[in-house]
Amino acid sequence: MKYSEMNKEDLLALREELNKQYEDVKGKGISLNMSRGKPSAKQLDCSLDIIDAIKSDSLLYSEDGSDCRNYGVLTGIPEAKKLMAEMINTNPENVIVYGNSSLNVMYDQISRGYTHGYLGQTPWCKLDKIKFLCPAPGYDRHFAVTQHFGFELVTIPMTENGPDMDMVEEYVNNDPAVKGIWCVPKYSNPQGYVYSDETVKRFANLKPAAKDFRIFWDNAYSVHHLYDDNQPEILDIISLCEEAGNPDIVFEFASTSKISFPGSGVAVMAASKANLDDVKKSLTIQTIGHDKLNQLRHVRYFKNAEGIKEHMKKHAAELRPKFEATLKVLDSELGGLEIGEWTRPLGGYFISFDALEGCAKAIVAKCKEAGLTLTGAGATFPYGLDPKDSNIRIAPSFPTPEEMAQAAEIFVLCVKLVSLDKILESK
Amino acid sequence: MKYSEMNKEDLLALREELNKQYEDVKGKGISLNMSRGKPSAKQLDCSLDIIDAIKSDSLLYSEDGSDCRNYGVLTGIPEAKKLMAEMINTNPENVIVYGNSSLNVMYDQISRGYTHGYLGQTPWCKLDKIKFLCPAPGYDRHFAVTQHFGFELVTIPMTENGPDMDMVEEYVNNDPAVKGIWCVPKYSNPQGYVYSDETVKRFANLKPAAKDFRIFWDNAYSVHHLYDDNQPEILDIISLCEEAGNPDIVFEFASTSKISFPGSGVAVMAASKANLDDVKKSLTIQTIGHDKLNQLRHVRYFKNAEGIKEHMKKHAAELRPKFEATLKVLDSELGGLEIGEWTRPLGGYFISFDALEGCAKAIVAKCKEAGLTLTGAGATFPYGLDPKDSNIRIAPSFPTPEEMAQAAEIFVLCVKLVSLDKILESK
Repeated sequence: MKYSEMNKEDLLALREELNKQYEDVKGKGISLNMSRGKPSAKQLDCSLDIIDAIKSDSLLYSEDGSDCRNYGVLTGIPEAKKLMAEMINTNPENVIVYGNSSLNVMYDQISRGYTHGYLGQTPWCKLDKIKFLCPAPGYDRHFAVTQHFGFELVTIPMTENGPDMDMVEEYVNNDPAVKGIWCVPKYSNPQGYVYSDETVKRFANLKPAAKDFRIFWDNAYSVHHLYDDNQPEILDIISLCEEAGNPDIVFEFASTSKISFPGSGVAVMAASKANLDDVKKSLTIQTIGHDKLNQLRHVRYFKNAEGIKEHMKKHAAELRPKFEATLKVLDSELGGLEIGEWTRPLGGYFISFDALEGCAKAIVAKCKEAGLTLTGAGATFPYGLDPKDSNIRIAPSFPTPEEMAQAAEIFVLCVKLVSLDKILESK
Repeated sequence: MKYSEMNKEDLLALREELNKQYEDVKGKGISLNMSRGKPSAKQLDCSLDIIDAIKSDSLLYSEDGSDCRNYGVLTGIPEAKKLMAEMINTNPENVIVYGNSSLNVMYDQISRGYTHGYLGQTPWCKLDKIKFLCPAPGYDRHFAVTQHFGFELVTIPMTENGPDMDMVEEYVNNDPAVKGIWCVPKYSNPQGYVYSDETVKRFANLKPAAKDFRIFWDNAYSVHHLYDDNQPEILDIISLCEEAGNPDIVFEFASTSKISFPGSGVAVMAASKANLDDVKKSLTIQTIGHDKLNQLRHVRYFKNAEGIKEHMKKHAAELRPKFEATLKVLDSELGGLEIGEWTRPLGGYFISFDALEGCAKAIVAKCKEAGLTLTGAGATFPYGLDPKDSNIRIAPSFPTPEEMAQAAEIFVLCVKLVSLDKILESK
């Protein structure tokens, strides 16, 4: 029965009962964490052979004869370009292979716009106001980068098909202060939504008021499917932008952080030739090159996109039971109560939960009190402020399936209790 | 006999003879390169076991229990901090361990001053004029970073004891637009000079007019001795600055690029606690962490500073004959002619040659014509402009000793010919 349709007496009785359960749980001294979007140790075990993919007696030269042990090769060894390009469905000539962190590449791109400007445009540090569009709920570290540079963050609502494109077009096509938008087009963080073909096409066909507007297309979960048989794909933004006469409006990013090893993977950026040439002008000042031995390690292990795909099945086998355990508890305990909604992702690292308005912070606090750490409420919105105080990000990857089930039980209990308080207020 | 004391007829005869030799050399179709400050393949062979220092079945946790395969640990694993700090004679609490490139760390520090400012000072992008002191001859990539940000580069003459400190004090202590100075304190690039104790102390006791003035102390060659028995040491700038009440005026940098593998090494920055805290504020926005598996690989192989020292003896054994072969030719062929001066470094990667004024470009061009590539004349000065057109950087590391001897023979021949032309002009 929906909580909102229950009478006050029944609600009070229910609250009393649930409060007892909550006190029981607190007494257990539980310590669980479902805040972190990081692979579990078991997932990392799947990648161990990558470490052995090159040894001291391996051939340590790249296809083009470069000694991968020495200086040089600014944009990545050819075989790494091929592998990383395949992974995100683009061509090797469209990519630069970087070091261990795509977040760092994104930060650098923002910083480059700020210090030097893109393709001859005025550096952003010389302008009074920069606005950045932030589809939300979204990834807190994206928002933090643009906040760090003092940009005004504009919240764009998310839909199941991607950001609200009417609003995106309205901003981008009319306001020259709008210089960019953060996107996680596939298995979005935290909702797990996949941008529809129409959304991607509308992105490619934007008519930006600012010549230096860029789509920051963080294709972080391109191969992170949970199921073998239901794998949504997104259109290739790079070629669509080119076809639309907008070749320069997009930077695409990805990495093997959640494929091989977080912190010891390989990152990639894809863009038009003009953009890449522009990047290289400063990249060649910034560094002599990235870690080519690690590039080689990845290429020797994965060989090609098919190798990555096979490898990701092992990750899926670890992740799937955790997502399913979580969803099972949410479904069975909260289904029909109308005190929350949650997503059912087919991939990625998160489930997004929307509580009744004004309840998210209280739920997170209540979970914390019982020993369950969640991502801070509000984190999925610009400035950490969720206007409805409703969204909570659930990260099932790190605990075991059993721990996730236990964590989910505590979570739903707290959702119920906080929702009851809210509903009782209005009775 | 000195060329300047020879009469015109003898000079002309000598020129004719040398020209014949030069034509002979040209006919040989030689292709040699002594422009690049990079290790030879044989040096890299010495480091191969580093690759095997961790394997899939190794313990991949750090001393503090962090899983080095996963996200996290922004400032480096404790044992890597210890190793890198030992290498540059400072304390682990003074360092952040980074990724593969100290150049990139320096670029980031400059960029951070530009975009956000140091310790609450005005970001440099908001100021009209920034000046940077460039001891020259110096490292072209240093100068390029500050040129890239549009700073005014001020040339400071180098002496055998380091930069001209009278001039440094004059600029730093009086001009608030002077925000920094580039230093390679040990085995300076390209002269191989080692800063004297007095120089280091004067640096530590600067009284900068600008609160955000910083010494960029690139301790790139801290353990790169050529000889076992003659190893000059420099004073520790970090502790001297602290003692002088100037804890925040220095950033120190180093890496294992020329110890383990260029591009696959580990970089480090050392600074005061206040500076490190300031860096961390943006570093935590920029990345989740650097490559901890590679940090582990280095620690497991080298173990401690003593391990690095032993390892560097192998490098010295490779490099020493190349330096000696070069110096032998310079001494025997140019000694006493007074048409050039050269340094005799005890470590590092370069020999610096000063030709007669106005001759460097012509010598480099003449070498090129005969198949010998040198670092471009002027590269060792800000903006690539050597006011005297005199300095040439010789990099003996990459070719074999035999190739170096051959290259040096061509070099001295070209020095002689160009010098003769110059002397004949005034006869």
